[in-house]
Amino acid sequence: MTSHRLLCLGGARSGKSRYAQQRAEVGEGAPVFIATAQPFDDEMHARIARHRADRDGRWHCIEAPLDLAPAIDALSGQGKIVLVDCLTLWLSNLLLAGKPFEAEATILTQAVARFDGTIILVANEVGWGIVPDNALARKFRDDAGRLNQHMASICDEVMLVVAGLPLRLK
Amino acid sequence: MTSHRLLCLGGARSGKSRYAQQRAEVGEGAPVFIATAQPFDDEMHARIARHRADRDGRWHCIEAPLDLAPAIDALSGQGKIVLVDCLTLWLSNLLLAGKPFEAEATILTQAVARFDGTIILVANEVGWGIVPDNALARKFRDDAGRLNQHMASICDEVMLVVAGLPLRLK
Amino acid sequence: MTSHRLLCLGGARSGKSRYAQQRAEVGEGAPVFIATAQPFDDEMHARIARHRADRDGRWHCIEAPLDLAPAIDALSGQGKIVLVDCLTLWLSNLLLAGKPFEAEATILTQAVARFDGTIILVANEVGWGIVPDNALARKFRDDAGRLNQHMASICDEVMLVVAGLPLRLK
Repeated sequence: MTSHRLLCLGGARSGKSRYAQQRAEVGEGAPVFIATAQPFDDEMHARIARHRADRDGRWHCIEAPLDLAPAIDALSGQGKIVLVDCLTLWLSNLLLAGKPFEAEATILTQAVARFDGTIILVANEVGWGIVPDNALARKFRDDAGRLNQHMASICDEVMLVVAGLPLRLK
Repeated sequence: MTSHRLLCLGGARSGKSRYAQQRAEVGEGAPVFIATAQPFDDEMHARIARHRADRDGRWHCIEAPLDLAPAIDALSGQGKIVLVDCLTLWLSNLLLAGKPFEAEATILTQAVARFDGTIILVANEVGWGIVPDNALARKFRDDAGRLNQHMASICDEVMLVVAGLPLRLK
Repeated sequence: MTSHRLLCLGGARSGKSRYAQQRAEVGEGAPVFIATAQPFDDEMHARIARHRADRDGRWHCIEAPLDLAPAIDALSGQGKIVLVDCLTLWLSNLLLAGKPFEAEATILTQAVARFDGTIILVANEVGWGIVPDNALARKFRDDAGRLNQHMASICDEVMLVVAGLPLRLK
């Protein structure tokens, strides 16, 4: 089986998750959904339920809010199609847990780079607004931008999704 | 007359309105401008006046801050070129008026889908920054993203305008 | 020597500065870096140092936080490759110094338009989030959008950089 790494970027409600799911569902192999979202509150509960309703019945779902690299490694070479949704929420969980960005980003990038099979990653573009007032938000958007650059550099295919429409970047 | 539906997306001051106007002005048929802006304050007055100064003398202007679907229906089959600027302000008016998003978005999407003639829609991309602090802003950007997806799915042509330059998405 | 004007647009941490530097480093002629950043605080110091570490040893560096047009004029016709990083920080310095946008933007645009040689400009896209609460931020993003449109109209080549990947706009 040839490995394929696809990164789906986009703003909030750009249709990037749906596009990524469609790409996974037309592939060969059982689709596995790795969710990074944590249902802290009602709003997040509703968001997760909405995403779940979009997926067909074949999906197996795994939760990995923080330990994403081991979850990816465990699925390597299994003939599955792995969808990670999304890297930006994982980054947010990382910062909340006080874990260092550079070290964790390196570990995750390596896990994606060595993955044997098809892996599809979803991530948010968050740096296209005005500079945020507070330092934490600035660090978050800087880290998110760096993470997207790291992932784009090792992926075979990168799509920017705007209003549900994919635009090829790589 | 063949119908054509064009959606022009872009950030603030991306040149999307000017691009949309130029597309309307080279078309066959008298151009009609449907404005969704409401001149609440001096800033908005100035913004509306600036947009008006960009348009040539042939334009007929209609204001439809809320009842956009009936305004579009009334112009269907008249041989006009209709420009709606913009959907995102209409959405903002909708939320301020306490109207439900899903029902209104469906009505509007249907009006655009059945329009007989050339219709050009302008909308803002608002979901590319960090997650807003307050729930209302989050709902607004989610709704705006969904509305853009709905419109993109029924339009024949979708352009993303960046720094005045159009990039074809569909 | 044929003149070439390249504008590199992108969000925060999109890789636009690195892309611009790589383009400068493969060109013929000694590269000159015109920095508009002012090291007000530790965060900005670190940001400037990080950008400097990305550049190879051949670079000559000039600081022009406000008087950007004269700095560009002085390098015209010298066979250098000039990189200005970035226009959006220059705009920010302009507003802080209380200088009028339209007049200064016109002067800068003219200096770029008459530049004899290769000039590469970096600028931020800042208008893709929700409307900012405060009027100053709204003016800043409007001015930034207008400046990017002015520059794009006179440049020979415009690239949008997303996750380190360039997308041609012109």
